[in-house]
Amino acid sequence: MSIPGITGPAGFSAGAVAAGIKPSGALDLALILNEGPRSDAAAVFTRNRVVASPVRVSRKAVADGQLRAVAINSGNANACNGAQGDADARAMVDAVSHGTDIAVNDIAICSTGLIGEPLPMDNVLTGIADVVNHIGATRQHGNNAATAIMTTDTIPKESVYAGDGWSVGAMGKGVGMMAPSLATMLVCITTDAIANAAILQRSLEKACIQTFNTLDVDGSTSTNDTVIIMSSGASGVQPSEEELAQAILEVCADIADQLQADAEGVTKRVKISVAGTGSDEQALHAARTLGRDNLFKCAMFGSDPNWGRVLAAVGMADADMDPDNISVYFNDQPVCVQSTGVPGARDVDLSGADIDVRVDLGTGGTGTAFVRTTDLSYSYVEINSAYSS
Amino acid sequence: MSIPGITGPAGFSAGAVAAGIKPSGALDLALILNEGPRSDAAAVFTRNRVVASPVRVSRKAVADGQLRAVAINSGNANACNGAQGDADARAMVDAVSHGTDIAVNDIAICSTGLIGEPLPMDNVLTGIADVVNHIGATRQHGNNAATAIMTTDTIPKESVYAGDGWSVGAMGKGVGMMAPSLATMLVCITTDAIANAAILQRSLEKACIQTFNTLDVDGSTSTNDTVIIMSSGASGVQPSEEELAQAILEVCADIADQLQADAEGVTKRVKISVAGTGSDEQALHAARTLGRDNLFKCAMFGSDPNWGRVLAAVGMADADMDPDNISVYFNDQPVCVQSTGVPGARDVDLSGADIDVRVDLGTGGTGTAFVRTTDLSYSYVEINSAYSS
Repeated sequence: MSIPGITGPAGFSAGAVAAGIKPSGALDLALILNEGPRSDAAAVFTRNRVVASPVRVSRKAVADGQLRAVAINSGNANACNGAQGDADARAMVDAVSHGTDIAVNDIAICSTGLIGEPLPMDNVLTGIADVVNHIGATRQHGNNAATAIMTTDTIPKESVYAGDGWSVGAMGKGVGMMAPSLATMLVCITTDAIANAAILQRSLEKACIQTFNTLDVDGSTSTNDTVIIMSSGASGVQPSEEELAQAILEVCADIADQLQADAEGVTKRVKISVAGTGSDEQALHAARTLGRDNLFKCAMFGSDPNWGRVLAAVGMADADMDPDNISVYFNDQPVCVQSTGVPGARDVDLSGADIDVRVDLGTGGTGTAFVRTTDLSYSYVEINSAYSS
Repeated sequence: MSIPGITGPAGFSAGAVAAGIKPSGALDLALILNEGPRSDAAAVFTRNRVVASPVRVSRKAVADGQLRAVAINSGNANACNGAQGDADARAMVDAVSHGTDIAVNDIAICSTGLIGEPLPMDNVLTGIADVVNHIGATRQHGNNAATAIMTTDTIPKESVYAGDGWSVGAMGKGVGMMAPSLATMLVCITTDAIANAAILQRSLEKACIQTFNTLDVDGSTSTNDTVIIMSSGASGVQPSEEELAQAILEVCADIADQLQADAEGVTKRVKISVAGTGSDEQALHAARTLGRDNLFKCAMFGSDPNWGRVLAAVGMADADMDPDNISVYFNDQPVCVQSTGVPGARDVDLSGADIDVRVDLGTGGTGTAFVRTTDLSYSYVEINSAYSS
């Protein structure tokens, strides 16, 4: 029975401390170590052109497909801090290297929190020196790390997949700035399966497309998105690429579900499926256009089956459609057929926490896609109108 | 001294009644008549591919550049009602024709309100038969019409431009579903200047690009957007095309200002200017990307100078940029230079109702553009989470 989280797979240890980066005094610095025997690794980063200093550093570190440590701080994104930010990121790596005897080129770092504030380096460096004394392979150690990377997350997010003699563990954080291109979060995945960096990279990219990239909470994409996977090979088992890819997909899907459920101010989890258009890409564009429409998202918050807003939103999508033949289903009940309301459509019950929205654009085309989004609530506004103050 | 509104220019009369389309019993049906001697007209409609029945009817009516009447109802958009919606729209035109002796091909109609509910035709037809008895050319008549087209607007919106012996008047409504492609609203413009339909069309399109199309409240574009201009020629004056275009631009700008100020739940009016990129089109895309970013809009609501969200948002725009050389100014104070925070940036005062945001993408390119948007407030969520119930 594998334990959830990054310390589940053999060969991994982790730990966290409260370094004082967060004013609250909560855990805010995590370190994950891959003790081998192998150190294959892969990563996917934000597509935002404004990237944080830790992303620049970690891109270089993982370029050779090898990592042995990941250090993550919350409370500060170390983004948009210019040359000082880059220097601070390198200093974090140096400190981890000093404390662990791991080569700087095998160390990735992540930061999450407010953009544009210099890192409090005294706290960060003291914290790194301290965290190496709090490393272990228990479930609690992994959970501490998952807790230390939280920002406005309300709960730590962990997952596990148990293979036959091997496993995959994961942790993640992310609550706002969630949009395609990784749904804006940090995720660290560990496995004791034997797998080279190329297999890890392919499997991770496929999993991201199907999971994190389908999550669109607020259309905003952060400067710090990072998903890292490290393999220790400590199980001695080499699953097929297909088996491993499936395992990685499952933990990513699980973490994505948890991210959606804990998104800022969320009261509804909304799945939007689109069909009946020219291509999967067009369907995805239509689904995202709807998933980002604030009027639609407010209607979901109000449990209001206002399907007219669905038509108004998809009508602006860059997708093939027959404007007179669009169908909409809320929770599998037809509310609009041939672009016209179905009697009783206003009475569909959307009071539950999960809402399923299905749209057929009516061309008979085979393109399909889905995205997961959330409602737009008072709490979203509350949380995000006073973040930096 | 010209009076504001659509009855300002000579040759126009208007009126409104409470037809019972709105449950509140407020004015909800307006009629504007062009009594000539000329009946040149032009219009711009929504780019949404899902279009309301009145838009289909009015497109046909104005195709020959001639209109003598516009009827507008609020309380129901007559959108997504299928063949019944089209028949109801034609029945509205027939009723106006019957009551006014104007040919059906010279009558445009507009509807605004909830999408997907059949029009209450008994009320609509009785209202049209009644409104012809309440037509006049006073300021009050024009104001009644401007009041009757309101949905969640809190005030009627009217404007006037006084030329030398001629004038342009306007009224508009619009509060949500405001995004490029007309900012989603209904606007009716009248002028007693002599101008043919081609001149009116060119002038109107130019004005829309610079005014309504720069307004982006929530990224949503409605199915009913319509801007109509009618010319009576009653002044006997024929201004140059340049003069007339300027007058039309001025009333459109004035109405756009009023729409922005009265947008749903607005507490801040935000102007976003972008420069330093490859083309005006790229600058516009970057400005819109920022103007639609919910995290940025929440920060504006909180008067929070969180410039990091500006960089995160523009970093996803389809525009040339130097990610290390982006500058941001809030109310003319630099808060970010070379993509790095300026000391004191968090102390910039954004407590006023108007916030000016200027972004330079740092490439040295000459592209510039601006959009006007609003904050994302509790009230926006409140108004839009219970609209159809």
